[in-house]
Amino acid sequence: MSGTPAPDHTLDASDAHVHYEWDNSLDPVLTVDPGEVVEFVCRDAADGAFGPDSTVDDLTSREFPGHPLTGPVAVRGAEPGDVLEVELLDFEHHGWGVTYFYPGDRGMGLLPEEFPEGGMHWWDLDGGVGRFVEGIEVPLDPFPGNLGCAPAETGAHSTTPPRRVGGNLDVKHLTEGATLSLPVECPGALFSIGDCHGAQGDGEVCVTGIEAPMDVTVRFDVRSDRSVEHPEFRTTGPFTPTGRDEPMYGTTGVADDLLEATRLAVSHMVDHLHTDRGLTRAEAYMLCSVAVDCKVSEVVDAPNWVVSAYLPESLFP
Amino acid sequence: MSGTPAPDHTLDASDAHVHYEWDNSLDPVLTVDPGEVVEFVCRDAADGAFGPDSTVDDLTSREFPGHPLTGPVAVRGAEPGDVLEVELLDFEHHGWGVTYFYPGDRGMGLLPEEFPEGGMHWWDLDGGVGRFVEGIEVPLDPFPGNLGCAPAETGAHSTTPPRRVGGNLDVKHLTEGATLSLPVECPGALFSIGDCHGAQGDGEVCVTGIEAPMDVTVRFDVRSDRSVEHPEFRTTGPFTPTGRDEPMYGTTGVADDLLEATRLAVSHMVDHLHTDRGLTRAEAYMLCSVAVDCKVSEVVDAPNWVVSAYLPESLFP
Repeated sequence: MSGTPAPDHTLDASDAHVHYEWDNSLDPVLTVDPGEVVEFVCRDAADGAFGPDSTVDDLTSREFPGHPLTGPVAVRGAEPGDVLEVELLDFEHHGWGVTYFYPGDRGMGLLPEEFPEGGMHWWDLDGGVGRFVEGIEVPLDPFPGNLGCAPAETGAHSTTPPRRVGGNLDVKHLTEGATLSLPVECPGALFSIGDCHGAQGDGEVCVTGIEAPMDVTVRFDVRSDRSVEHPEFRTTGPFTPTGRDEPMYGTTGVADDLLEATRLAVSHMVDHLHTDRGLTRAEAYMLCSVAVDCKVSEVVDAPNWVVSAYLPESLFP
Repeated sequence: MSGTPAPDHTLDASDAHVHYEWDNSLDPVLTVDPGEVVEFVCRDAADGAFGPDSTVDDLTSREFPGHPLTGPVAVRGAEPGDVLEVELLDFEHHGWGVTYFYPGDRGMGLLPEEFPEGGMHWWDLDGGVGRFVEGIEVPLDPFPGNLGCAPAETGAHSTTPPRRVGGNLDVKHLTEGATLSLPVECPGALFSIGDCHGAQGDGEVCVTGIEAPMDVTVRFDVRSDRSVEHPEFRTTGPFTPTGRDEPMYGTTGVADDLLEATRLAVSHMVDHLHTDRGLTRAEAYMLCSVAVDCKVSEVVDAPNWVVSAYLPESLFP
């Protein structure tokens, strides 16, 4: 993209540059200086397993080995206790993405009990939008779902849960121009990245966003003069699909447990999309995962908390 | 405000129109037809107990009897199973507000362990902004924290927890122009409203927003052709203080419990406001409660969830 500095290094997504677990004993595939710019070619979360004709059977018959992450990259001078700053300069998708959810008996996603069957949607990504069903267009705001430093704890660790050093954070606002500050636990930080999303709602409720391979350009810096306990970041959003206030439909979940409140809010949004917008329930669940934002409305009015789910009405034709 | 329909009825906030518990045996103070417009004069959540010179001692020596709610209003034709639609037409504050939090041993708010002492800030509300410390200005986006229908369950019920019929929802986007759909459980719906906030962050983490008396104008409708399980709404925000994308500082909490993830995200934001912005920790906690938004970033990457707290940098001079 114009204005993006030319990378000092490019890491392609060949097998030699890709790993499927966090492990601080992995040798860095590249060592860079602070200030250098690196382009990471990232595979999609499903490692290219699916295509336009794939079905849920292809999903369930496949073993998930972990997210394919490109790296690790060592940054000179980064020591435990420092902060690795990752400036996200540019994202280029490859024209396609996929959203899917597993059959409920796998126990994955927010509402497995409501969705005994799995589901899948193949997206053609055309510049700035992904096309869903019924003329619905989801604006693309690409970000990496999974990026972080290697954890101090030795051994191989799943790429699924996020940790204090980052990983599968799925913070949707880590978009172009954002800067992420990560705690460093190992010498050189040992940074890896992947699992890019063309779009995702706050919550990623069905377990996937628009999963897409991408080329991600970042600039590294190391800060020894500050520390963070968990990842922190600066961003300019977007906070709505249009980047400004616009009509939203909101559902709530009221419950004495915050996870249950989130489940209820999303379940009510699935009902709304099915009843009032004519989507199948599977389509509704996937649209929630890629475009509906879950907010903690209140978490102090004991014993009941409120989570609200927000659907931007600009998605509809 | 210009453009707001003249109310068909006005309920002042005299003792005869105010109650402190939800109770479906309370006689309606007014009965209206669907389509009618009612102006509710609402006391602040602390029932006028505090003034510009009040201190935390005044807070701790006072017994909280419940939120003073104006109502109940019966809407003709509303029957259990129906939806009461409440269109929020106008809010007028009275020029002041107050934010406070209790000493931690009361166990209230999100971070009682971190705040053994209480805190209080008196706000002069000048048109569209509330003035905090250090030149910080919080844009006012008024909404009612507590509004709902009487619950079907007999007896007196605390105004503190929200319920499926509404109540203390603290959904900050129920601003001017929004429409709230509430489940009806009692004949006439028996609607009451109060606890208005000049501003609040998603989460209301210290337990108060900018608590302010206000005159709220609403229009009622009854829908027998639809139903909702929990409150639902339409809104146009604002979703950021400026109504468009703007720089935010984000902190995260990564934990295997969503409430703990929220605590961590807010605790890290308090640290940021104290360390990088020079606020006292008490000021930081209150600013989080009135202006920082908590979002559920992901709730599917078991066993760890991520909640992020967003601070709009436009608040600062």
